[in-house]
Amino acid sequence: MPGLPPTVAWLGGPDGTLYLLDQTQLPARVSFRACTHVEHVWEAIRSLGVRGAPAIGVAAAYGLCVATRPFRGLDRAAFLSRTVEAAAYLAGARPTAVNLAWAVERVQARAQQTPADSGADGAWRAMFAEAEAIAGQDADICRRIGQAGAHLVPRGGTVLTHCNAGALATAGRGTALALLYEAHERGVAFRVLVDETRPLLQGARLTAFELAAAGIEARLICDSAAASLMRLGQVQMVVVGADRVAANGDVANKIGTYAVALAARQHGVPFYVAAPLSTFDPRTPTGDAIPIEQRGAEEVRRAGGADVAAPSVACLNPAFDVTPAEFVRAIVTERGLVEPVDAATVRALLGPG
Amino acid sequence: MPGLPPTVAWLGGPDGTLYLLDQTQLPARVSFRACTHVEHVWEAIRSLGVRGAPAIGVAAAYGLCVATRPFRGLDRAAFLSRTVEAAAYLAGARPTAVNLAWAVERVQARAQQTPADSGADGAWRAMFAEAEAIAGQDADICRRIGQAGAHLVPRGGTVLTHCNAGALATAGRGTALALLYEAHERGVAFRVLVDETRPLLQGARLTAFELAAAGIEARLICDSAAASLMRLGQVQMVVVGADRVAANGDVANKIGTYAVALAARQHGVPFYVAAPLSTFDPRTPTGDAIPIEQRGAEEVRRAGGADVAAPSVACLNPAFDVTPAEFVRAIVTERGLVEPVDAATVRALLGPG
Repeated sequence: MPGLPPTVAWLGGPDGTLYLLDQTQLPARVSFRACTHVEHVWEAIRSLGVRGAPAIGVAAAYGLCVATRPFRGLDRAAFLSRTVEAAAYLAGARPTAVNLAWAVERVQARAQQTPADSGADGAWRAMFAEAEAIAGQDADICRRIGQAGAHLVPRGGTVLTHCNAGALATAGRGTALALLYEAHERGVAFRVLVDETRPLLQGARLTAFELAAAGIEARLICDSAAASLMRLGQVQMVVVGADRVAANGDVANKIGTYAVALAARQHGVPFYVAAPLSTFDPRTPTGDAIPIEQRGAEEVRRAGGADVAAPSVACLNPAFDVTPAEFVRAIVTERGLVEPVDAATVRALLGPG
Repeated sequence: MPGLPPTVAWLGGPDGTLYLLDQTQLPARVSFRACTHVEHVWEAIRSLGVRGAPAIGVAAAYGLCVATRPFRGLDRAAFLSRTVEAAAYLAGARPTAVNLAWAVERVQARAQQTPADSGADGAWRAMFAEAEAIAGQDADICRRIGQAGAHLVPRGGTVLTHCNAGALATAGRGTALALLYEAHERGVAFRVLVDETRPLLQGARLTAFELAAAGIEARLICDSAAASLMRLGQVQMVVVGADRVAANGDVANKIGTYAVALAARQHGVPFYVAAPLSTFDPRTPTGDAIPIEQRGAEEVRRAGGADVAAPSVACLNPAFDVTPAEFVRAIVTERGLVEPVDAATVRALLGPG
């Protein structure tokens, strides 16, 4: 997006450097982490320096290239063995977003598919090309998601979103926010309510920042205010991203998404999910099978960098929740809308892919 | 409560000083504001130095004594006129909690009821005695609310609460938390999930602090996690306080209460409100007629004392929401349970008072 720093940038060609925008510093500081070792990439993903399912996928794809570049001098079999190890390491950085495993597997598979006589260096170059392709495709996918769903944005209405499924969550213009950017470009007037999204405040720090940069009118609210504002008729549409979509259409997304979906259904507000096909996981039958990352207590105990609860207070910090398919009006993908959201429609969508 | 500092304390008799615990500093610092002028009391209420509907009532009752003490040398009519002015000023500090207006009116009425020949000083002494009575009664009411509702606490279960309706919200042992203290004393084992309660984090700062002091096992969660945890079967009861109960049983309470009530109903978790009779406002027919205080944007824009969103970000910050009566299983009062929660039952409860 114009005006926004890139989320993931590999500069200088195959011998260059991977830079990841450190989103934990936004909006106060725009700074990048130079990732010269795979541990840097793992740590950036783990600590949410880079976050958002599509962006994690792109970062991990490049991360596998960072991990294996030093082994280009090995023989092919040894190189491929190192690649498998590094892929498993990276895929373990966060358990919920399926794009992470998807991207790493795709890059690794590309290495395996190179001709047997291509050598380690050839395999690595194929992997790098694959990572570049994933990044480029992500930008294209974001644009197509926006185009597929922009007509859903209510003219003159208010759209509520949770967490950040914008440019900062992808290598393009976002997923949920892509709909808003596209509608804004088409001249549709609307306003946005942004859930601040505790504990890490991605809504306050990232989404409000992005929407302001794009010139879209937005107001920040505490997460717990969303249901009441819907009851008062102040919301006409909800759109969020997804970290994983199960085969039956159940959606794992940032903690608090389910609460929003429940309130939306109660008050007749359509609830949309915007997600690329890479977020769909046909191997996960339902939401109950999606592993939910439990994060550290300090994220809840602290706010704005300061302790707000006593250090002895125990916390529970699930990073994601599951919204059952029945709460989702449609899922907006780069291939159009999944509607109704159920196993048959999801299967039909993924089938020809 | 043993181990907890008093919320409101008037020390030194009629010529003494009103001290209000500055709850904005908790849990990091226990400090009191000495309120020698009525503006100090107004400011403490406005800034949430003292908060919680019953505590606000007690503070305001004493506040009216602080306001009018300098006028004891005036003639009676002039004194009563000053009392009316001060009462209106204090009642305007916060619009939603009905206890504030109730307490101020009760103290003021006491002055009016003194014999015509009692003079300004006699009227003031009667007011002071009334403020002392309100404080003493509040402690007694809290205990009776706890006794009336302790049997509702599920043995071996988990109770979720939102905001702080504990000792720190009253001059006694609290309202919602009084049930838990009483059940704990009766040997009932249970655990508590505490909503952190953005934006001002009364759950994290106050409720977690209180429960720890009482030796009750508690875990802090982000507000937005409550619905998902209910979906996962991890909550067996919800209990919250109230800032105002309308004649039909609709409940105004801290923003986010409605979201909790909605999730509780969806998942079959009983949702209780604990509130003294002074919180009921028969002159307010339904929740729609309750004025909802809109507070400043900086409360949302900041967290833990630091800016988390850019200073230019607009915010919406309703301090309260309304939970319709149909979502409330029962209201626990010092006179027993209001159940079902509807206009007829509320009328029957208040009638003989």
